[in-house]
Amino acid sequence: MAHSVTPRATPAPSPRAGGPVFLGADEAARLAARLGEASALGATLAEERAAIEAWLAEKPWVPGSGPGGGVEHEQHKRNYSMLFAAGRHWQMTGDRRLLERIRTVLLAYAEIYPTLAFAKPYSQNPPGRLFHQILNEHMWLLFAAAGYGSVSADLSAADRAAIEAHLFQPMVTMFTVTYAHHFDIIHNHGMWASGAVGVAGIACGRDDWLTLAIDGQRGDRATAGFLAQLSLLFSPTGYYEEGPYYQRFALQPMFLFAEALERARPDLGIYRFADHAVRRAFMGALDCALADGTLLPLNDALKRMTIGSLGYRLGASLLYARDGADPRLLALAARHGRVWPDASGLKLSDALKGEVPQSFATGSALMTCGPQGDRGAVGILRADAAVASLDCGSHGLAEHSHFDGLTLGYFEGGAEVLRDYGAVRWINVEPKHGGAYLPENLSFSKQTIAHNTVTIDETSQHGGDAERAMRHHGRVLRFAGETAGRCCMVGEIAAFTPGVTLRRTVALLDHADFERPLLVDVVEITADAEHLYDHAFYYDGQIIVPPASFAAEPTLAPFGTAPGYRHLWRLGAAALGDGRGGLTWLQGATFRTLTLAASTAAELVLTRIGANDPNFNLRAEPGLVLRLKARDAWIAGVVESHGYFDEATETSRAPRGQITAIERLPAEDGLTVLRLTGHDRNGRAATWRVGLAASGDTHAVDGFAWSGAVEIRRDIKP
Amino acid sequence: MAHSVTPRATPAPSPRAGGPVFLGADEAARLAARLGEASALGATLAEERAAIEAWLAEKPWVPGSGPGGGVEHEQHKRNYSMLFAAGRHWQMTGDRRLLERIRTVLLAYAEIYPTLAFAKPYSQNPPGRLFHQILNEHMWLLFAAAGYGSVSADLSAADRAAIEAHLFQPMVTMFTVTYAHHFDIIHNHGMWASGAVGVAGIACGRDDWLTLAIDGQRGDRATAGFLAQLSLLFSPTGYYEEGPYYQRFALQPMFLFAEALERARPDLGIYRFADHAVRRAFMGALDCALADGTLLPLNDALKRMTIGSLGYRLGASLLYARDGADPRLLALAARHGRVWPDASGLKLSDALKGEVPQSFATGSALMTCGPQGDRGAVGILRADAAVASLDCGSHGLAEHSHFDGLTLGYFEGGAEVLRDYGAVRWINVEPKHGGAYLPENLSFSKQTIAHNTVTIDETSQHGGDAERAMRHHGRVLRFAGETAGRCCMVGEIAAFTPGVTLRRTVALLDHADFERPLLVDVVEITADAEHLYDHAFYYDGQIIVPPASFAAEPTLAPFGTAPGYRHLWRLGAAALGDGRGGLTWLQGATFRTLTLAASTAAELVLTRIGANDPNFNLRAEPGLVLRLKARDAWIAGVVESHGYFDEATETSRAPRGQITAIERLPAEDGLTVLRLTGHDRNGRAATWRVGLAASGDTHAVDGFAWSGAVEIRRDIKP
Repeated sequence: MAHSVTPRATPAPSPRAGGPVFLGADEAARLAARLGEASALGATLAEERAAIEAWLAEKPWVPGSGPGGGVEHEQHKRNYSMLFAAGRHWQMTGDRRLLERIRTVLLAYAEIYPTLAFAKPYSQNPPGRLFHQILNEHMWLLFAAAGYGSVSADLSAADRAAIEAHLFQPMVTMFTVTYAHHFDIIHNHGMWASGAVGVAGIACGRDDWLTLAIDGQRGDRATAGFLAQLSLLFSPTGYYEEGPYYQRFALQPMFLFAEALERARPDLGIYRFADHAVRRAFMGALDCALADGTLLPLNDALKRMTIGSLGYRLGASLLYARDGADPRLLALAARHGRVWPDASGLKLSDALKGEVPQSFATGSALMTCGPQGDRGAVGILRADAAVASLDCGSHGLAEHSHFDGLTLGYFEGGAEVLRDYGAVRWINVEPKHGGAYLPENLSFSKQTIAHNTVTIDETSQHGGDAERAMRHHGRVLRFAGETAGRCCMVGEIAAFTPGVTLRRTVALLDHADFERPLLVDVVEITADAEHLYDHAFYYDGQIIVPPASFAAEPTLAPFGTAPGYRHLWRLGAAALGDGRGGLTWLQGATFRTLTLAASTAAELVLTRIGANDPNFNLRAEPGLVLRLKARDAWIAGVVESHGYFDEATETSRAPRGQITAIERLPAEDGLTVLRLTGHDRNGRAATWRVGLAASGDTHAVDGFAWSGAVEIRRDIKP
Repeated sequence: MAHSVTPRATPAPSPRAGGPVFLGADEAARLAARLGEASALGATLAEERAAIEAWLAEKPWVPGSGPGGGVEHEQHKRNYSMLFAAGRHWQMTGDRRLLERIRTVLLAYAEIYPTLAFAKPYSQNPPGRLFHQILNEHMWLLFAAAGYGSVSADLSAADRAAIEAHLFQPMVTMFTVTYAHHFDIIHNHGMWASGAVGVAGIACGRDDWLTLAIDGQRGDRATAGFLAQLSLLFSPTGYYEEGPYYQRFALQPMFLFAEALERARPDLGIYRFADHAVRRAFMGALDCALADGTLLPLNDALKRMTIGSLGYRLGASLLYARDGADPRLLALAARHGRVWPDASGLKLSDALKGEVPQSFATGSALMTCGPQGDRGAVGILRADAAVASLDCGSHGLAEHSHFDGLTLGYFEGGAEVLRDYGAVRWINVEPKHGGAYLPENLSFSKQTIAHNTVTIDETSQHGGDAERAMRHHGRVLRFAGETAGRCCMVGEIAAFTPGVTLRRTVALLDHADFERPLLVDVVEITADAEHLYDHAFYYDGQIIVPPASFAAEPTLAPFGTAPGYRHLWRLGAAALGDGRGGLTWLQGATFRTLTLAASTAAELVLTRIGANDPNFNLRAEPGLVLRLKARDAWIAGVVESHGYFDEATETSRAPRGQITAIERLPAEDGLTVLRLTGHDRNGRAATWRVGLAASGDTHAVDGFAWSGAVEIRRDIKP
């Protein structure tokens, strides 16, 4: 469903005085009445208060700049969080120590800020004066200005003048003039920039700043500014161009500025703007979370990031109060045990005292890409504790995107079975290049071979050129997510490599003969000429049954010299005997078996990440690559999760997979029938057939008939 | 303190009838009264009952033999556990379903047992008929015979005759005649063998079996049999010759047979025998546990094994009731939440309703080795959350011992910082050689280079010859464990390599300038000629600051061809510039920095385990080796634990260590003074001096005076 991307500008109301941005006087009193309450709100306020008291107990400290994760960086982060929280608590309690500390710290910043040179940068992001990248300075302004708004009426005119003229004005000038090109980008940085300038505008009563933040520098609300960000960054299903990791981050300025606008500019109806873009963005972010709270690691992602982060806390409260009391929000807030400290959080906290659903999770979901939802999609299949994701969407924004079209993610029982590396970054760990992205993020993790997809002729998709990549997108041929245990999707990318089309069919199947769901995965390649195909799978754990006839290398060399390949050690290889083979590994307490078959003889190469990595920036994780040379080709795989191992009790069960071979039966284009050979859970020899259909309702191949996208049945022996 | 090892044989009482081994009629009634009780005993009985009901719900199944971890193996284990438990519950409840199932299963075993061939063996342990190794058959007999004893009075004479003649008699014959050589070994297998034959003797009223089990085949109680096991396997401090992992295992037959004897042969006074050997053995096993419940991984060890295992559950109850109600036993049982289901467990369960100490852990402990305590010792230093172990004891029994004299273990905050590999075994994981020990256990993990100690001329200690190794042992020059934060020990090994003496001084030091305790480690080498010294450290985590001037290898080759070395990939090396250098890694959420210095120029080689391992039997763990060539030499190291990293909140603190260099000041033999250079927690440059003394009370070196074994002080600038 498309939505408007070029709303008309409405005339702004007459100039306003500055003051509190997020909390009215009556609201502050209502919150104050809940201090000490045994509730999510009470816990939130108590936690904030404890942090503020720790801050008050220390001498005010306003240092210069430092690298990410360095003590100066962390102190500036702490100062802005505390300015914000202390402002709120000043409004609630009138405790003059809070007012005094906020004043002291803001004046200290105002005193040094004009004297500071630009910080040492660690990335292509322009530096600020407090932080190594302007992004963090945006964050500083947003939170600190909100804190200032809470106290400004209680400061002298001289103090206000000093803070606004020597701190906020130079910041806004830096953001909007010095770095004018960066202010207007459609990107999480642009969201932060507009949020910061907008909140500062409200706090200081500077409508010029506020207007700039809402409308963008060209004033058109279409190419820049907060409204354009809302219109352009999210698809109709709320998928975010940069992927879930940055979506989580963008939620913060989105909610903070939206809520500020709802209070300062109710005429905008911001929560309803662009087809409820705020709501869509949040629910999309929630749809991309796994049941354990981690996020799908598409594009640059730190793998431990969860729905515990601030944007999700903001969203649960604000949406619940502002745009529909969805029960998933209650479940999310119950998990947080915290709410946003304002009237919305108060409402949510009270609701948490009633009945609360168990889970915030949804079923299978197709996340369309692009503001119009017409640039492919990311599919998420869910069957019990199994989740598979297939990326047939758009490249996303250049900076954080990976060349990973048709990459497959697979999670089972809370573990990532087929792994995505994520970003090469030790965030805020100062010795790792100031906590910034590391060179291997480009040289390894963005490259196609770093992903669970097919690399052609050792060359990343689009030749590794982001500009080229943004001109193409995948498409979804079929998405059948209604029935857990029979869910399936079919995606296709063409032109990611000239002359080659890749189609991938992924299904999650429950069958009584198998302990846990099967992941079935079929890649079909149609090409103009012979190519070298490398189909990679990254896993996690100890190999229990190596591929048959595996020959280990006596010495290790990088797998190749091409981008990505040069970071993989080639551990050895096995022939995919008569086109089929596999391996079993132990991941935590569970065994996993991947069985593979291909249209032609192939080589199964085992790898480990870490070659050409003298600074140990990469994690030494294992993988495998199925390599074959052909024109048209197919590769079919099945992943089983089975058995149990517990070293402490010395118990083990079912350490081998049930499937020993996969065959693909001849079938017309668009249909795939696999025959799986193996044994059932009682050890009796058995075969099963799996039918997959890219389209259509009823199908039959070689006597195997099924309806819909996918079916699995055990063959009955005559 | 030595104790008697050759007790006189006392005349056995007159022949007894068979019957219950572990539970009297009155006792069974007292337990039955507690069924359903909300207590540790109630939980124990309920858990047993649930397992029994699941067993009853299935068809009785008595298969043939199979590999470790295979379904047959697991079924035999299950059957013996259930025969034992069901016998107990039959005595308690008179539920005839239990009697019938025990009868059915035992008769099924009696029917097939005489027909079974020997199983396929996977190790040098001789095979049984049910299991791939006789050891498991011992276990089977002990538990199943106990179950039989519980019901034998309620079986017909014909059933009893069938079970005793066709099942128990052939087993005892196999254990004591066919494998006579294995029955008498002083070893955990011998403990199981005597326990099994003894318990079967009591259950069947066969005093000939019982006498054999108590006295050994030569009847001397000195070289074999249960009493000899108790006399010879444990040192005066309760240290067990095979190490803590097998001690945990030996506790099971020790307690079961001891308790059986206390009931059947009270004349033996078994709990007081040999200076309370049973108690010593158990408290020694408890002293070797870490606060998280895992055991010191000395010799062959599966690293996840904990004090949750059966031997510890048996010991807590039986010792509490039989030989002194030590509060540590209460703390241990509270952790279990379970007790042993007899009168002793009833007493302990009732005691758990009162006040219970928090921890079962002890302070620093010196575990002497050898039955007389005169074969060196293993020292365990404890300071807050830090634990260091130094092995200066005896080689132990050949089968499971490692060539790892002076190996250092280091644990901090619940993590193993300096790691011991443990055993190369995926226990009961059938595809891994039937779950048995793997070839790499000998070719890697027993070798000296696999441990945190010094390998000389690329040759394991004693040339890797266990017979030679058993002729030597280390010695402890000093053990100062009284003061946490100033604890220290000095150990020495001579003749482990002809012509070379190694002395190692290890200290745990608290100092206000450092966040967490420092581990200080000094190795001194005195030799007859020039040798190649490789001092290895194994760690766990991601390198954050590589060694200065580290040069990565473009391709990887094994570190060497010698035993152990051939399984290490050589990742690259750095020069230990002017004799000092180090590296920082991230382990979980904590940074660790190892700073090293040596008497001469040295090479710091980074390694990863996994070369020449085509079956992926080894875990790919990282390590480093400090390599130098010299005659006499010293190597000093300090490990700091510092800072914090949490990816989910993107926060990091103190990612670099405070110490940048170590110097050793000239001092007389037996004294070591290190000057540590670096900065304090506020970033101010500082130096500290550490004084270590192998003997004596007061010491002074270059103006630095201290008393006792160890001191650390910050240098005050003039």
